[in-house]
Amino acid sequence: MIRAIIWRSEYLEIIDQTCLPLKVEYCKLFHIEDVFNAISTLKVRGAPLIGITAAYGLYLGCKDHKPATREQFFELLDKNIQYLSGARPTAVNLVWALHEIREQLRAEQTEDATRLPEALLARARELHKDDERRCQQMGINGQELIPKKARILTHCNTGALATGGIGTALGVIFTAAQSGKNIKIYADETRPVLQGARLTMWELKAAGLPATLISDSAASWLMATGGIDLVMVGADRIAANGATANKIGTYNLALSAQYHKIPFYVAAPLSTFDRKIKNGRDIPVEMRNADEIRRIFGKQYITLPDADCWNPAFDVTPPELISAFITEAGIVRPPFRQAIEELFVKLNHTLN
Amino acid sequence: MIRAIIWRSEYLEIIDQTCLPLKVEYCKLFHIEDVFNAISTLKVRGAPLIGITAAYGLYLGCKDHKPATREQFFELLDKNIQYLSGARPTAVNLVWALHEIREQLRAEQTEDATRLPEALLARARELHKDDERRCQQMGINGQELIPKKARILTHCNTGALATGGIGTALGVIFTAAQSGKNIKIYADETRPVLQGARLTMWELKAAGLPATLISDSAASWLMATGGIDLVMVGADRIAANGATANKIGTYNLALSAQYHKIPFYVAAPLSTFDRKIKNGRDIPVEMRNADEIRRIFGKQYITLPDADCWNPAFDVTPPELISAFITEAGIVRPPFRQAIEELFVKLNHTLN
Repeated sequence: MIRAIIWRSEYLEIIDQTCLPLKVEYCKLFHIEDVFNAISTLKVRGAPLIGITAAYGLYLGCKDHKPATREQFFELLDKNIQYLSGARPTAVNLVWALHEIREQLRAEQTEDATRLPEALLARARELHKDDERRCQQMGINGQELIPKKARILTHCNTGALATGGIGTALGVIFTAAQSGKNIKIYADETRPVLQGARLTMWELKAAGLPATLISDSAASWLMATGGIDLVMVGADRIAANGATANKIGTYNLALSAQYHKIPFYVAAPLSTFDRKIKNGRDIPVEMRNADEIRRIFGKQYITLPDADCWNPAFDVTPPELISAFITEAGIVRPPFRQAIEELFVKLNHTLN
Repeated sequence: MIRAIIWRSEYLEIIDQTCLPLKVEYCKLFHIEDVFNAISTLKVRGAPLIGITAAYGLYLGCKDHKPATREQFFELLDKNIQYLSGARPTAVNLVWALHEIREQLRAEQTEDATRLPEALLARARELHKDDERRCQQMGINGQELIPKKARILTHCNTGALATGGIGTALGVIFTAAQSGKNIKIYADETRPVLQGARLTMWELKAAGLPATLISDSAASWLMATGGIDLVMVGADRIAANGATANKIGTYNLALSAQYHKIPFYVAAPLSTFDRKIKNGRDIPVEMRNADEIRRIFGKQYITLPDADCWNPAFDVTPPELISAFITEAGIVRPPFRQAIEELFVKLNHTLN
């Protein structure tokens, strides 16, 4: 199985995803600043993976400090949490992971502040393993939505390169194929950064599941003519009403799926739900550099070098275009505001 | 004004559009085979321009032959018409232009067969000039659909690089801007061949009308958030019921425009209407090489070099998603089957 990031005792090793699939290049991240840069330049991407990577970054940011007191440690920690949270504004998993770890460390009873960095690392590793389990469970839970024979259209990359495990949407697809279902996969190339063309095609080939690549703008015509049975995507943030921020182009697919009466599913772990955000319009959407559109691999221009570009990294799909969510805690069906609320109430009961 | 093709007495000079906007490179086409290749490799593209280019190609294919009889001339002509018609299967203007010229030559009374090649050239030049006039008229006719202040989204390239004049959809937009309207243009990049990013952005800058470039998949999100007032595109073939084949991605835009209650206009000369074709499903859609998706400018791979790709060059937008057609003979409004029929009946009366 592909491992997008590996913890190596003193540093975090990552596959530089901006080089895939032309080169498989590994990077070593020794400092918190390396982690910030790797996330903001998309060397590491994918909502769940960003959270895990940031958690290791938090450790790298305090391991060389010898805090005299708990207060000193948490002061540094909070500063670093704030710093890393700014690396990508839309994916909520990042903020979730950092605050989750903070809460866990707050609960540590030790008075020996010098032990807290190691405790932090242990939490980061646990988070990493935990995401792997959640991916597996999403894969299993999603099976009731996948027919024995299915042509599935997906967008961006939502597999091992986007998570700590087999993936979200792609994890459900992998699980379906492994369980013997007859799965035919179509991948949107996902301009401007081409995560579909570069990462999903590479992952699927590595997994022995060859896919067919299409230009993003061909998706509607494929739905009209190609007999797509379902669309499955991941998510970067899901509001309390089910409105879903995900890679630019997702909204477009959801619209088209509805027009063609094709089910549209979102696979995401619970950490992607941000119940503080009531509606889609309140989700911050990251605007990225024009050069992502103007140049391929940061090099070859495909338009005027000074072309004005509008480059939102995400869009927000309204709940009425989504058929169901696949989470590690089960399938969530409409009406979403109520179903999401009930799911979390039930989970809190289970936890308490 | 940009001239995509120029007749130079003995040869046709073209801008090699595959090199734009990085290089403005001219090619000289001396033989009919050069013309066939220029069309099939997209050095020359755009439905009306393909027709004009092919007409010159027809002349290049017979100018060095000295036909002894009319029959010999027409035998060669028919062979060449068949050959050139195969260069691109979807755009009907190509076939229309070649048959139009054939009819005109059939009507020539001369018994001196050696004069027919020169007569052919005169017809090709007339066709070229005629397209310029038709573009101008479309530009004028379209104005009633363009508000004084309008944010317009367009797809592919439909300007001077696609026609013998100022263009179809882009011609209407140019005319609106020149008449003092406050026009803001958004251009889809138009994967896989990037005609929007490469050609439309270049043309608009040359015309002093800077535009904003977007990834194709961002179009729906732009419609939802950016206040697009109308979408305007060209066409490669329009069936008797108004179903419109145009660059892949057009169908997607039309769907999304309807969802957002934004008018969706198609600007095309009458030569784009193919009334023999009753419905959209009967329009042949050209499937092109996977390398158009896999590689940028035929060089840089953006996915696995052996990635399976589905690459239809066009899609077909059903009439119910189209608000109106802009032609040189006026605006055509729904119900289209009836309106198109009436338009051509009226024109035939005028001609006879």
